[in-house]
Amino acid sequence: MPDTTTLTGEPFDRTPFESLLRRRLFFTEAFEIYRTASNFTGDNRGLYDYGPPGCALQANIVDLWRKHFVLEEDMLELDCTMLTPEEVFKTSGHVDKFADWMCKDPVKGDYLRADHLIENVLEARLKGDKTARGIAVVEEEEKDNPANAKKKKMKIKDVKTQRLEDAIVQEYEEILAKIDNYDGNELGELIKRLDIRNPDGNGEVLPPVPFNLMFKTTIGPSAASPAYLRPETAQGQFLNFKKLLEYNQNQMPFASASIGKSFRNEISPRSGLLRVREFLMAEIEHFVDPESGKKHTRFDEVKDAELSLLDRETQLSGKTHLRTMKIGKAVEQKVVDNETLGYFLVRVKLFLEKLGIRPEKLRFRQHLANEMAHYACDCWDAELLTSYGWIECVGCADRSAYDLSVHAKRTGEALVVRELRPEPLKVEEWQAVLDKKKLGPKFRRDAKAVENAVEALSQDGLEVLAAHLEKEGEIALSAAGLSEGKSEVKLGKDLISIGRHVRVEHTRDYTPNVIEPSFGIGRILYSLLEQIYWHRPEDVARGVLSLPFSVAPTKVLLVPLSSQPEFVPIIRKISQRLRSLGISNRIDDTSASIGKRYSRNDELGTPLGITVDFDSVKDGSITLRDRDSTKQVRASQDEVIAAIKSLVEGQETWEDVFKRLPEFLGQSID
Amino acid sequence: MPDTTTLTGEPFDRTPFESLLRRRLFFTEAFEIYRTASNFTGDNRGLYDYGPPGCALQANIVDLWRKHFVLEEDMLELDCTMLTPEEVFKTSGHVDKFADWMCKDPVKGDYLRADHLIENVLEARLKGDKTARGIAVVEEEEKDNPANAKKKKMKIKDVKTQRLEDAIVQEYEEILAKIDNYDGNELGELIKRLDIRNPDGNGEVLPPVPFNLMFKTTIGPSAASPAYLRPETAQGQFLNFKKLLEYNQNQMPFASASIGKSFRNEISPRSGLLRVREFLMAEIEHFVDPESGKKHTRFDEVKDAELSLLDRETQLSGKTHLRTMKIGKAVEQKVVDNETLGYFLVRVKLFLEKLGIRPEKLRFRQHLANEMAHYACDCWDAELLTSYGWIECVGCADRSAYDLSVHAKRTGEALVVRELRPEPLKVEEWQAVLDKKKLGPKFRRDAKAVENAVEALSQDGLEVLAAHLEKEGEIALSAAGLSEGKSEVKLGKDLISIGRHVRVEHTRDYTPNVIEPSFGIGRILYSLLEQIYWHRPEDVARGVLSLPFSVAPTKVLLVPLSSQPEFVPIIRKISQRLRSLGISNRIDDTSASIGKRYSRNDELGTPLGITVDFDSVKDGSITLRDRDSTKQVRASQDEVIAAIKSLVEGQETWEDVFKRLPEFLGQSID
Repeated sequence: MPDTTTLTGEPFDRTPFESLLRRRLFFTEAFEIYRTASNFTGDNRGLYDYGPPGCALQANIVDLWRKHFVLEEDMLELDCTMLTPEEVFKTSGHVDKFADWMCKDPVKGDYLRADHLIENVLEARLKGDKTARGIAVVEEEEKDNPANAKKKKMKIKDVKTQRLEDAIVQEYEEILAKIDNYDGNELGELIKRLDIRNPDGNGEVLPPVPFNLMFKTTIGPSAASPAYLRPETAQGQFLNFKKLLEYNQNQMPFASASIGKSFRNEISPRSGLLRVREFLMAEIEHFVDPESGKKHTRFDEVKDAELSLLDRETQLSGKTHLRTMKIGKAVEQKVVDNETLGYFLVRVKLFLEKLGIRPEKLRFRQHLANEMAHYACDCWDAELLTSYGWIECVGCADRSAYDLSVHAKRTGEALVVRELRPEPLKVEEWQAVLDKKKLGPKFRRDAKAVENAVEALSQDGLEVLAAHLEKEGEIALSAAGLSEGKSEVKLGKDLISIGRHVRVEHTRDYTPNVIEPSFGIGRILYSLLEQIYWHRPEDVARGVLSLPFSVAPTKVLLVPLSSQPEFVPIIRKISQRLRSLGISNRIDDTSASIGKRYSRNDELGTPLGITVDFDSVKDGSITLRDRDSTKQVRASQDEVIAAIKSLVEGQETWEDVFKRLPEFLGQSID
Repeated sequence: MPDTTTLTGEPFDRTPFESLLRRRLFFTEAFEIYRTASNFTGDNRGLYDYGPPGCALQANIVDLWRKHFVLEEDMLELDCTMLTPEEVFKTSGHVDKFADWMCKDPVKGDYLRADHLIENVLEARLKGDKTARGIAVVEEEEKDNPANAKKKKMKIKDVKTQRLEDAIVQEYEEILAKIDNYDGNELGELIKRLDIRNPDGNGEVLPPVPFNLMFKTTIGPSAASPAYLRPETAQGQFLNFKKLLEYNQNQMPFASASIGKSFRNEISPRSGLLRVREFLMAEIEHFVDPESGKKHTRFDEVKDAELSLLDRETQLSGKTHLRTMKIGKAVEQKVVDNETLGYFLVRVKLFLEKLGIRPEKLRFRQHLANEMAHYACDCWDAELLTSYGWIECVGCADRSAYDLSVHAKRTGEALVVRELRPEPLKVEEWQAVLDKKKLGPKFRRDAKAVENAVEALSQDGLEVLAAHLEKEGEIALSAAGLSEGKSEVKLGKDLISIGRHVRVEHTRDYTPNVIEPSFGIGRILYSLLEQIYWHRPEDVARGVLSLPFSVAPTKVLLVPLSSQPEFVPIIRKISQRLRSLGISNRIDDTSASIGKRYSRNDELGTPLGITVDFDSVKDGSITLRDRDSTKQVRASQDEVIAAIKSLVEGQETWEDVFKRLPEFLGQSID
């Protein structure tokens, strides 16, 4: 487990954290009552439901995303279908290439993802080595907590406490650093050479085979229309490119965007929300003229922003250290390929920080060559540090003209931008002209085939034929689709002429390139929760989620001191006033103690709490509590509501409010 | 086509309307460039993508729904997976019963939905009858437009201009009125008796067979885990019932809610967005104590609201007239079964009217017995009038305790509410007590089986056995799972005693009933667009969408009079100010005329337009235009922005603003 620390600098402990998320219903395994039921078998992992706070948090992240990206830059948002005909994914390359390498353990019947298998086994061996070298702390712990130490010893025995040679340790570390760069054959060789087996039972595994990650189904009653659930929202955006360009009144560059669920049939889902089979994505497809050098008009606004980068070269040398660079410099030095990509990297960083992501737990890692998706020519991931390590949460890929080109080729639809040239372009080129009046009578039903064959000739071909025609007065031309098994026709000077002609192009057609920032909302949500979770020193069992106002599911908790009926109208009135300001709030009028009610809401990430007590009935004053400091102030309803508004809108911090309103120390909160 | 009229009272014409939706990219057939490509076959209809204005309209409808239902009543929102294991839908009854009746035309290879087939054929025959009776107007038209009349004649010939007997006309009309009430056998008989054939080719069709409407796939690499895409979001909510109740601190009643995509593999999708295979739903599951009479604490607030009702009895008598009733009276008279159902019918009506649905084009229709889904015991649909007829857009079903009961039975999980009784309940009952000390030694490994058999005895069984034991001193008891093929054991008075005992119940366990308002967002969106579409008398080709502020994709259009650079900073400033008030706006600085730019935005449903002209540069004043009246006012930026805010928030109408700000007549808008 990486050395992650909470906001208060303590080591992060996943057990109480996960218990909090379960207890407060942020999310839960889908159809859990079935998983534990008898007679229910089958592989149904990797599917999660979001409960009320998770659902609200997700909605707030999406809302912020829409404001930060779509509205800020007038992107064209789409909502496309998840069901997609097979033909679309055949063209896009997903049917052939969207696969992971999978090994089967023929004895256990387990299916294992090859790269994860190698990672797990090598990491266990390295751990065993560390233990054997005495890096483990079992002995020390033995004095303080013998029971625990005993358990640890047993665990260490499981992973084999073998002392490895220094060269082997180094080799393993290098393999792990570039694990994403191996193809199926290489993974197979590693498994063989390093004798990697299924950790569960130690059985040998079969060589890796590709497993396609798309879910298949069929559309309609006839079963003649195979389809897949989309693994990304991108294809729907590409297929609508022509209409979007028209909608955008033919102005370039522009971006489309889409928020929706996608599906990947993971071989063996793990790590909770981090590797799931159904997930919410938010994707941007920014269409840009490749000849513009992929410059961006707003790059100047971001050029001094600093990013932590882990580039391809560093990784290939087996290292993982970060370089902190201004994006302007990074693009200048070609560490990051172009301005548009650089612009989006910074925008991504700003977005993540708005959510509450901690800057020191964010890095941008460049993909290795073999790691990239089949459609990408460059890719940088925004990775967030969690207890599972650095997790890819946003991918920024340069898809070049790949997708638009393949769909255009398959469908015959011109997915291009047509631009008026500032100066007409003169192109001198070879041109063949057929005498169509004579062509028909001479070739009858072959005439069309002859025409097609002439049209298909390249410039080089035309040049050769021109010389031949000049010399021989006749040329022989291969043509497909001729009648009576013929494959060639002869054309004399009476039928065809070939010469140099000048063509004037007033317009320029080009296929745009695509820069694609693609966000895994569930991964961001989970990583964020880990990064902002902590607990108060006096209460280890109960946590606090320091979600910022922007995304906290509920902004204000309203608690009456007791079930006194006089409190009811006051609480309702405050709730109504906050709602009319668009500030989400909840009343907790259960009989639990105020302290318990506040703790529950600390765990739900509610930043503020209002208490109505007997003084409120007398003088109208109420108290306002800050989740993170637990400090309280007391003032009139108007003053408190104004302070809340200013806090939610980011005009003041709690420190500002605390300074200007009188502190309240009266009630005990326990 | 039903006689629908636009807001200006003219007949609705679907052709220019659909052309507007396509032109402005509200939505489009998914993967359209593939549909028209060569070599692309297969059944891929019924799938639509939403373009920018459709996507924004959809998001605004969903946002309003969340505020109107979820926030207003503190519902617990969930986001559950679409992929669902087969076992869940086996239990819920969907694998067996979620099907439509389908007929195959063996010659053409067509699959036809049986009820739609009958509807189409009978409607065509009735039309033919009308024509034969001289109701058609072909002859009249012949004078004015001979070419058109000729086409019409040919068309009429196709549908057979046969004069039907009066009794037959009446029979057909009755069949159509209750078409939803026939089961598969009855549909088959109708097809046979009335000689109904495939309109395409006139071939006979095979008898109807059920076709399951769920899309099937498998989860994981082993293919051993069949799964379906959910056809409704409800099941995920039911499976989480226990956690939701706990999250709600065990308080009843409460509601959960969910917004998400669902999937139905329609046999033959038609009518554009009205019958699609992938669609956005918003569903509420309101859990209520069945012994409460399904009363609702807020029913009083709505009891005087009037609804247009079409109840079951009226339909079964072959009629379709509406009854306008106050909901209080309707519940009192048991037209609507209970308060909770009645409460939601009114809330649905209020929601639809907030969107802009026209009250005279909304009715509530009760389902016929055979029409109801297998889980429902009563159901009222909110239907909206469109050019396709009355369309079910919201279903309000009483699902009773059906779903929770079947899942509880299958999984062994108690999906019940446990409530403290106000008074403990004393229950006198038969009870058998075994002497466990003797049981073990006597029966050895059969002891457990004997215990189970005794526990499984009913009250009646115990009564009989008590008498027998008293009389004979011994009883014979059948038990499953005994060793050595035994099926019975004998128990004497030394081992068992049976007598009357009083049990005191302090708590009461019950399975809640569920009232489910279920919204088809796409259908609502389409019906709304039809209902608020019209065109100006002087311009038939261009339409206006009178979307209210609440859901209009963009609230304000900003247009500079020309490309003068002085206008740019003014426009940007206004855009920025509106955005900071949360008011969505777009700049159109293309070179089209002001009139064209306004027309485009009338078609996009943008309610307001601001023009910046040379006077704006001089004195800071700007003009504000109302979409529906095309009237304009002129005032300072501050005044106009304040007016916009007040309009968007519903504090003023355009009439109010028009009265208090000076009218502007200066620019020509063409």
